[in-house]
Amino acid sequence: MADVDVCVVGAGFAGLTAALRLNRAGRSVALLEARDRAGGRTYTVTRDNGVWIDRGGAWIGPGQDRIYALMAEFGVPEYKQYNDGEAMMIVGGKKHRYGGTIPWTMSPWAVTNLGLGLAAVEKMCKSIPREAPWEAKRADEWDRISLGQWLDKNTLSKPARDMLDMALAGPYTSAASETSLLWVLLQMASGGGPTFVISGKGGAQDARPVGGMGAIYGPMVAELGGAVHFSQPVRLIAQDGDGVTVRSDDLTVRARRAIVAIPLAIANTIDYEPVLPVDRALLHHRMPSGAVYKISIVYDEPFWRADGLSGQSAAPGSPATLTIDACTDTAVPGIMCVITEGPAARRLARLDEAERKAVVIGELADRFGAKARAPREFHEQDWILERYSGGGMISHAPTGVLTQFGYTLRPPCGRIHWAGTESSATMCGWVDGAIRSGERAASEVLAA
Amino acid sequence: MADVDVCVVGAGFAGLTAALRLNRAGRSVALLEARDRAGGRTYTVTRDNGVWIDRGGAWIGPGQDRIYALMAEFGVPEYKQYNDGEAMMIVGGKKHRYGGTIPWTMSPWAVTNLGLGLAAVEKMCKSIPREAPWEAKRADEWDRISLGQWLDKNTLSKPARDMLDMALAGPYTSAASETSLLWVLLQMASGGGPTFVISGKGGAQDARPVGGMGAIYGPMVAELGGAVHFSQPVRLIAQDGDGVTVRSDDLTVRARRAIVAIPLAIANTIDYEPVLPVDRALLHHRMPSGAVYKISIVYDEPFWRADGLSGQSAAPGSPATLTIDACTDTAVPGIMCVITEGPAARRLARLDEAERKAVVIGELADRFGAKARAPREFHEQDWILERYSGGGMISHAPTGVLTQFGYTLRPPCGRIHWAGTESSATMCGWVDGAIRSGERAASEVLAA
Repeated sequence: MADVDVCVVGAGFAGLTAALRLNRAGRSVALLEARDRAGGRTYTVTRDNGVWIDRGGAWIGPGQDRIYALMAEFGVPEYKQYNDGEAMMIVGGKKHRYGGTIPWTMSPWAVTNLGLGLAAVEKMCKSIPREAPWEAKRADEWDRISLGQWLDKNTLSKPARDMLDMALAGPYTSAASETSLLWVLLQMASGGGPTFVISGKGGAQDARPVGGMGAIYGPMVAELGGAVHFSQPVRLIAQDGDGVTVRSDDLTVRARRAIVAIPLAIANTIDYEPVLPVDRALLHHRMPSGAVYKISIVYDEPFWRADGLSGQSAAPGSPATLTIDACTDTAVPGIMCVITEGPAARRLARLDEAERKAVVIGELADRFGAKARAPREFHEQDWILERYSGGGMISHAPTGVLTQFGYTLRPPCGRIHWAGTESSATMCGWVDGAIRSGERAASEVLAA
Repeated sequence: MADVDVCVVGAGFAGLTAALRLNRAGRSVALLEARDRAGGRTYTVTRDNGVWIDRGGAWIGPGQDRIYALMAEFGVPEYKQYNDGEAMMIVGGKKHRYGGTIPWTMSPWAVTNLGLGLAAVEKMCKSIPREAPWEAKRADEWDRISLGQWLDKNTLSKPARDMLDMALAGPYTSAASETSLLWVLLQMASGGGPTFVISGKGGAQDARPVGGMGAIYGPMVAELGGAVHFSQPVRLIAQDGDGVTVRSDDLTVRARRAIVAIPLAIANTIDYEPVLPVDRALLHHRMPSGAVYKISIVYDEPFWRADGLSGQSAAPGSPATLTIDACTDTAVPGIMCVITEGPAARRLARLDEAERKAVVIGELADRFGAKARAPREFHEQDWILERYSGGGMISHAPTGVLTQFGYTLRPPCGRIHWAGTESSATMCGWVDGAIRSGERAASEVLAA
């Protein structure tokens, strides 16, 4: 039985940040993590030769000040995402190579539709009060319909619809038919709008930390030292007048307050005594995670660059939906990253490992040529297999949830405080949002 | 470490039925129940004076052959729901007394709307293949929209909309905006259509077992004897080539196969090794339960009967949304049952116990006169507080879920078989459906 000031649950960026801030403010902390590793929905594996691979969240961009601040604290530099050369879009069986963010070689009809669709989302995002999206003037209307329905009505061109579906529903790794339009608007607005979300340069894929996300969370874990307890899935959080008791299979921690920094569907696996207020308890049933594969394929060199390609490609619905150059800052070896989300990821999951590899490599060869067929290494990360993430990437809210239950995302329930990127009004869904949520939760605890 | 043929998780009607069938077929069984009682979402409390109160599921009706068969096995007779006298409907601040199922004293416009709405739902229900609703011709279209949206489009009269919302969304104890239309159609179709759902006589509220549901599940528990282990929330189900290992905090059971007979959101709280197939794993995030109060108020006698009232009343959105005569077969004492679901139940949860009692009694007095102000006993059952039900009454599927994940509701995942009323294609959501699901799971295990 440990006795500390604060017990933090979850060693992703939210929990680590909260624990670190409290620790530096002189509070004693115990951090319980279910897995045998830190990082949560980020996960950096460093090879013997020093090459690192980010198997989860990886990119950063302008406006994500809190992760930049953390990188400055730990002396982690950034490097820019490789963006030279042309991108590629595969829609309706046709391959388009293009510069910039819009594939102009598509039909003018599709391009117009795409442009209008993005502009409409951008405009709606502007009217979302980030801290309280349920107070948007048209909140009820937007929370009533799914993103899928909105796309059905607002994109008449099939290629444009497919692309917008991929770009807008993709991050939630669930189908557009499952996700409330209001949730999409909130999440995108929290990052500044859809242009930020889908952009490389100047957007959410602008840069990466040298050494990967692990170069940041690694030193955080090191600084926290013995306060971090791995392989301790929390079963129970009981609160009383004086404090909280947090129990895993092996450990019981007594603390003044608890910070729960895990995805919402996973927060549902903990017993709370007394039970949580009804709306918060029901929120834990109502924000599912989705399916996502992130596959890193290592080649001798980034051969696509020599062919005038950035390595970015998008093929809605394909088993290799998105590709992006994922080299380290040294550009050798060549690392190509494949991200496949939602329904396409679930189809991929039905194949066995060898089939999956063959299909993905086949897609890459089709886009980038025969050299793609000779990878040195093939690392696949299926986030569904990560029991304590419960899937990837960002949880979503179905219709009717945000307007009824959204207000419970942040306020503490007695001595239990909530963190996790989904609770952040700024950069919700990114690592930066996770860090912000950890800082907020730490501030709440220090103020209490 | 117990070693048995089959380990059943959950001692509601689904789990009890499965365990009993297997036991009688000569298989050894261990049944692990998280609570210190059996019954699941039914819960009968019998008073010292022999009066029983059903704090959860209570009613039965024609077509529910499997619960009738179980009652016959254990010698439990039925008695008819009291249905004489007029019912009452309170909409738009006006009170209507009426006989039959339609409050004819409402405006003809509202009555017409109501009738047309019910007829439209009835018709859609007829086209649902119960075993595979995702194969309905219009499945995609109906799974794309919420019940709320359908009501918006199809009921122009506000009172008719409110009543249909209450009647159709009520059972899922969540808002109409959250529930996929296809799910509503499936659930209603599984019982024969909306008329069955909302009807007393000849419908889902036709009769009750004498002694309450406990008169059935009590003897089932007694027959199973030492096979039932209470207060054993299951943490882990691991399967290998030879069998399964099921672990609670205190017990480890080794068995050839497992049957999981708990609500879907609660199935999410168990660790599965290896992890479940992706679509089943994600289904556990995607079928939330809702909020419901069932309040039983005991009076010296059922005074409303003398006033020519059946005791049935409906007031959409009110803190006492539905009332129904809940006397035992002896008609003394008088027991009035209040059922408040979804958003109205969540509002009720924000009051303290005394306030809630005052508000509910006030509503009853308003409907049934001053005598309602002098109850002998007041028993409230808040199903959210039942951690191992996770809320009440029937789980729902949000938009896009049934067409993508619904096919995983029944098929076993290796050595893990699934039961629970939501997995029943017939009488889904009723006790009868739970029994059917238990029988099906037992048959699967016996056949394997």
